[in-house]
Amino acid sequence: MKFCSDCAHPVSRLTPPGDNRPRYVCENCGAIHYQNPKLVVGSIPVWEHGDDLRVLLCRRAIEPRRGFWTLPAGFMENSETTSEAAQRETEEESGAHIDLHTLFSIVNVPHVHQVHLFYRATLLDLEYEAGEESLEVAMFSEQDIPWSDIAFPTVEYTLRAFFTDHARIAREGGEFLLHSEDIRHPMMRPD
Amino acid sequence: MKFCSDCAHPVSRLTPPGDNRPRYVCENCGAIHYQNPKLVVGSIPVWEHGDDLRVLLCRRAIEPRRGFWTLPAGFMENSETTSEAAQRETEEESGAHIDLHTLFSIVNVPHVHQVHLFYRATLLDLEYEAGEESLEVAMFSEQDIPWSDIAFPTVEYTLRAFFTDHARIAREGGEFLLHSEDIRHPMMRPD
Repeated sequence: MKFCSDCAHPVSRLTPPGDNRPRYVCENCGAIHYQNPKLVVGSIPVWEHGDDLRVLLCRRAIEPRRGFWTLPAGFMENSETTSEAAQRETEEESGAHIDLHTLFSIVNVPHVHQVHLFYRATLLDLEYEAGEESLEVAMFSEQDIPWSDIAFPTVEYTLRAFFTDHARIAREGGEFLLHSEDIRHPMMRPD
Repeated sequence: MKFCSDCAHPVSRLTPPGDNRPRYVCENCGAIHYQNPKLVVGSIPVWEHGDDLRVLLCRRAIEPRRGFWTLPAGFMENSETTSEAAQRETEEESGAHIDLHTLFSIVNVPHVHQVHLFYRATLLDLEYEAGEESLEVAMFSEQDIPWSDIAFPTVEYTLRAFFTDHARIAREGGEFLLHSEDIRHPMMRPD
């Protein structure tokens, strides 16, 4: 940010009175331009019939990580809910028809100022097709997941937690749990 | 937003190619200024010893809803995690010392472009004091909660869900659950 979006005056970087961190401040009109983390919301679209358990993934047609596989997800928009965002992003990126269930994972990515949420979902049919931001869409069983070609750590974390939870429930019953994780950039770790 | 924060040119409101909703776009430098929901994160600080179950609330010293009671919470900042935000806001607004537990509620407020998250927390002592944004801080048992003077519906929802969960667990065991809700402005309801 270089200029005030209210009055076009150049902004300064300073800590406003009563605040405790630097902000973009307009010394002409007094506006304080706060910057806050963004929500990235998506789903884990599951097809499960008897022993056939597969998850839908999309191969990204856009940067970052073009060509890599991801769960359908994207930036939450103003005026929608997190569930609506998950449903919309799934439809836009994969054309899939889903029933959305409960929140499955919340993953913080503080170095890029993002929080990622993934909801479990049931695929209603296999009539999916790649949207504009996907090169292809495909179904994967656990042993076929292209682990080395997953686009983002939040997606890998969520997929691994999903299959672990699913196996536990198959073995001993119970419910899916909410999974929380913080993913920090390797360069920024305290050690 | 009236001016481009990158080049100070007046922005236009239009739907960029490949997008499906209007954005603030700079026709001079090409920047697209996305606007996304903000996270408000806080805690439910609990003091429980024997039959004594109380929750810490703060009376707001700032608008909106000055003079009304709230759980400690505020806007999540860049470069922090949701847990760090909950801990920081609790300390800033109430001076309380807490251990933070799992996420308890996620409440969408789409008409103000916000998502509110509340974590359960244990108060480590009763050495709290009002921060700059609070008029006073006090402990309330369930029957003393000032329900008609609660600042925000997300706080009322979270408090009611907390006491309901706590009573269920006291009665029949089990765990705290994640509670999800959407709070829509009365004027914007489909009915």
